[in-house]
Amino acid sequence: MALDEIKQILDFIVEIEKLKDVVRKTRPVGLNRYENSAEHSWHVCLSALMLKDSANGDVDIDRVIKMLLIHDLGEIDAGDTIIYASETQAIKDEEEAGIKRILNILPEGRADEYLMLWQEFEAGETMDAKYAKAIDRVPPLLHNLHGGGHSWSKHNISKEQVFSVNKRIAKGSEKLWNVLEKELEDAVESGILK
Amino acid sequence: MALDEIKQILDFIVEIEKLKDVVRKTRPVGLNRYENSAEHSWHVCLSALMLKDSANGDVDIDRVIKMLLIHDLGEIDAGDTIIYASETQAIKDEEEAGIKRILNILPEGRADEYLMLWQEFEAGETMDAKYAKAIDRVPPLLHNLHGGGHSWSKHNISKEQVFSVNKRIAKGSEKLWNVLEKELEDAVESGILK
Repeated sequence: MALDEIKQILDFIVEIEKLKDVVRKTRPVGLNRYENSAEHSWHVCLSALMLKDSANGDVDIDRVIKMLLIHDLGEIDAGDTIIYASETQAIKDEEEAGIKRILNILPEGRADEYLMLWQEFEAGETMDAKYAKAIDRVPPLLHNLHGGGHSWSKHNISKEQVFSVNKRIAKGSEKLWNVLEKELEDAVESGILK
Repeated sequence: MALDEIKQILDFIVEIEKLKDVVRKTRPVGLNRYENSAEHSWHVCLSALMLKDSANGDVDIDRVIKMLLIHDLGEIDAGDTIIYASETQAIKDEEEAGIKRILNILPEGRADEYLMLWQEFEAGETMDAKYAKAIDRVPPLLHNLHGGGHSWSKHNISKEQVFSVNKRIAKGSEKLWNVLEKELEDAVESGILK
């Protein structure tokens, strides 16, 4: 690797710092502030690793982790969208333009592999992508379940929305959805999910 | 994977949220706040991935990323220590007790693999660990280089300390150290590193 290539990668490493300033819609358990997309990205990578044996089919966990390391980079330009909002084509296009801009900071020939991985995640059709997308949905549920349903209540999210959006977790891991569905039913019972 | 095991892993996923509240000693480029160890962990994983071809020898990047995903979990109990402080045995012991406590939340039989990976990182003797440790040192340098040397100045870190501690980057990647050494010399020249 040439020294100039290392310099370009260091520019990339500085640019992606901006993900630490992208604010999400839920608060980490026990913290009185909103989560950012960089710490979220770490959290889902480690969650995916530990839950890998719960996936519906064979997953290549190393690919899944790489997918999750980069999955939110498009938000540096596009911002974070709550999963209960309908994701318009305009938002998707903005995120794709964003990830392309950022990956293009890398030395020539190095962007394509990661752009394809990002597109695979977005399409959500392969087993790796279905599993990665399932894991991506877990922390916001845990934040609400362990945080009095703060974000559900703040954004007026109904129990019907919560079940209908999150049952997609079963596409990646039916077992994981079984456990979470039960916890959501308990949350309805206890009144934090209305 | 049994449903009870999934529940235990969800407990682990909630517990490690606390890493988002461990405050480090440098500020992300462009941000007016200190970094936390969770977002740092994401940053070094993605940095390691992009710089992998700069390593001195063959590295298993998937092992390196797993190492970096967990490398700071011991700080949940022990807190963060600036790299310029002499790391006492007492701190090392506290971090090891911390990572053991956290990994033991996982279902039986799942902790050992990750404890060994953490210990390998700490020992810094294998090529994977040398490279991971080299990458771990990069973001604090970039934060200072792009942030007017804020943390160096605040903690009275001399240029001798900066060169002597960070030249260990060369153990993992001589090329990367060549580039950074030059940037540090420029920082001395411009007066932000004294």
